[in-house]
Amino acid sequence: MKHASTDIDIVKSTTSKLDSVDFENLKFGHVFTDHMMECDYEDGAWKTPVIKPYGKIELEPSAKVFHYGQAVFEGMKAFRDDNDKIWLFRPDENFKRINLSSKRLAIPEFPEEYFFQGLEELLKIDKEWIKKGFGNSLYIRPFVIATEPGVLASPGASYKFMIICSPAKSYYTGEVRVQISEKYSRAADGGVGAAKAAGNYGAQFYPTNLAKEAGFQQIIWTDANSHEFLEEAGTMNVFFRVNDTLLTAPVNDRILDGVTRKSILSLAEANSIKAEVRRVSVKEIIEAAKNGSLKEIFGAGTAAVINPIQGFGYKGERYELPKITDSYASFFKDKLMKIQYNLAEDEFGWRYEVKE
Amino acid sequence: MKHASTDIDIVKSTTSKLDSVDFENLKFGHVFTDHMMECDYEDGAWKTPVIKPYGKIELEPSAKVFHYGQAVFEGMKAFRDDNDKIWLFRPDENFKRINLSSKRLAIPEFPEEYFFQGLEELLKIDKEWIKKGFGNSLYIRPFVIATEPGVLASPGASYKFMIICSPAKSYYTGEVRVQISEKYSRAADGGVGAAKAAGNYGAQFYPTNLAKEAGFQQIIWTDANSHEFLEEAGTMNVFFRVNDTLLTAPVNDRILDGVTRKSILSLAEANSIKAEVRRVSVKEIIEAAKNGSLKEIFGAGTAAVINPIQGFGYKGERYELPKITDSYASFFKDKLMKIQYNLAEDEFGWRYEVKE
Repeated sequence: MKHASTDIDIVKSTTSKLDSVDFENLKFGHVFTDHMMECDYEDGAWKTPVIKPYGKIELEPSAKVFHYGQAVFEGMKAFRDDNDKIWLFRPDENFKRINLSSKRLAIPEFPEEYFFQGLEELLKIDKEWIKKGFGNSLYIRPFVIATEPGVLASPGASYKFMIICSPAKSYYTGEVRVQISEKYSRAADGGVGAAKAAGNYGAQFYPTNLAKEAGFQQIIWTDANSHEFLEEAGTMNVFFRVNDTLLTAPVNDRILDGVTRKSILSLAEANSIKAEVRRVSVKEIIEAAKNGSLKEIFGAGTAAVINPIQGFGYKGERYELPKITDSYASFFKDKLMKIQYNLAEDEFGWRYEVKE
Repeated sequence: MKHASTDIDIVKSTTSKLDSVDFENLKFGHVFTDHMMECDYEDGAWKTPVIKPYGKIELEPSAKVFHYGQAVFEGMKAFRDDNDKIWLFRPDENFKRINLSSKRLAIPEFPEEYFFQGLEELLKIDKEWIKKGFGNSLYIRPFVIATEPGVLASPGASYKFMIICSPAKSYYTGEVRVQISEKYSRAADGGVGAAKAAGNYGAQFYPTNLAKEAGFQQIIWTDANSHEFLEEAGTMNVFFRVNDTLLTAPVNDRILDGVTRKSILSLAEANSIKAEVRRVSVKEIIEAAKNGSLKEIFGAGTAAVINPIQGFGYKGERYELPKITDSYASFFKDKLMKIQYNLAEDEFGWRYEVKE
């Protein structure tokens, strides 16, 4: 990937919060680095990106993001290898996806050179926040919001693109049991489910709270029409292992085209693990759970990489998965992370070095 | 309605923008009054509401509203009658609905006394912004946003409830032709379509832009499953008149329970106009258009009150509606507005006086 030269305004922070952060006890997405990247869209064009000290932003109370949810985001990570090189994982996928999300939300697309140069400059300025060690990373959150004032329900004429970064430890959620959704749904055919649109996430909180009250940690979303087919797990794509075959739903306009998901499918192929990308019915998974052929369920996403699921609930019944030692979840997680941390050969060309 | 006494902090603006506003040429939702109401939720409770000069708000870039779309709103209007009394229209409905929306978005409900006292104090302070004259009004926008910093996808622990107000003239959009949606959809069964959730609106902008490029002003949304049934028009509920019968879809978890919609249904009953609340198929409306029994289509919502629709497109065909003089659209709009402006008897008890 080559990115054209861009002028970015840089205003460095005179102080650093680095010394005040306990890197051994990080709560996910809670602490942010010293700088952020900001770029405004006005009068039909994206202005010069600015890197400046992390801090609050000021908006009109009538800004369209507050009223009409014109907001999209991405989740990425940066890793430091043992030789202090900094790496990103398939950032081109996140760049392409944020623009697909923006398009669906009628937000102007962001220029590739601004995205990469802004991101790389920001990572270089805050590179001390990226800690060595397998499992440590810097979680990167690019996002775009509509800033134009006015409560007419129409696309905004001004926007703000930002990147903020938060140091992260390995994401461990404890044991996860999921409820298969019988009533609530995440996305409609012809809707915005395939976009990383802010509104898709807030819409999940209430059903997820109900699932938590029933003793589960997450929901596996089913299709809104029939609730017969399994789509996503919480905010992740979901995989099922029946005997030695991996199953996952095809992406469509309801399901996010996850970077971890597609990386797992490539790794499966390269490692001769049979994977079927097709609609997966609740019925077949229940049957597989009953006859013992359901070996694993796991979620896949940037934050957790892979999140094993120990059991699920459906129509008042609970199902526990067997404990297995040679799990696909561990296999893929290890493979992926070794590529991310430059500990394994990058046969797919997924690593992207942030060069000094 | 009785509302318990509440202490509200009031900080008055030392200046007013009133003289700088051209009330004859108002763009909808563009100019805001001198004050706004703000109330923060922290540590499990709504704090004392504050009325203060209208101005920007400061938020962390990681505030959950930007990333997870936890945001809901309402639309209301205040009217000044010929005796300088100020009236609201069924504000209890908006109060109930914002809390239903909040519940669906996992936002804490807002106290009734804060809502009414805050709103009434704000209207009294900015009462000079409510102009006399049939068609003039003050558009009122209560909304709630999640303000907690942090990019973990979970409900926020802090929120901001606000009310901002914008003076409005009669809402006239010109001739409106709508495209019946064949691909895109507004809401899923089990989703958040019934909530006035910010994300529902941004999701409509792109398909609406496509409809505009095809020569229409709005979309009539159909059900996401089959696209066979008519649901909402743009951001309004939609009514069809076939011969002398009014048809509109029942509210459900995809369709907003509109205040104007339910008021029209009450007025229809009181005026012996036959109304059927049932699923309305695209097929029957096309047939009615072809055989001449389709007399009217109109949208119903707070901003426009009633928005007549002159024609529609479906599968590449265009249909024009007849021009009629004794339209239901005009009848209901006149009835509703006369109640709103205290020019007609309030047989349903819909008016609510904002007393000095």
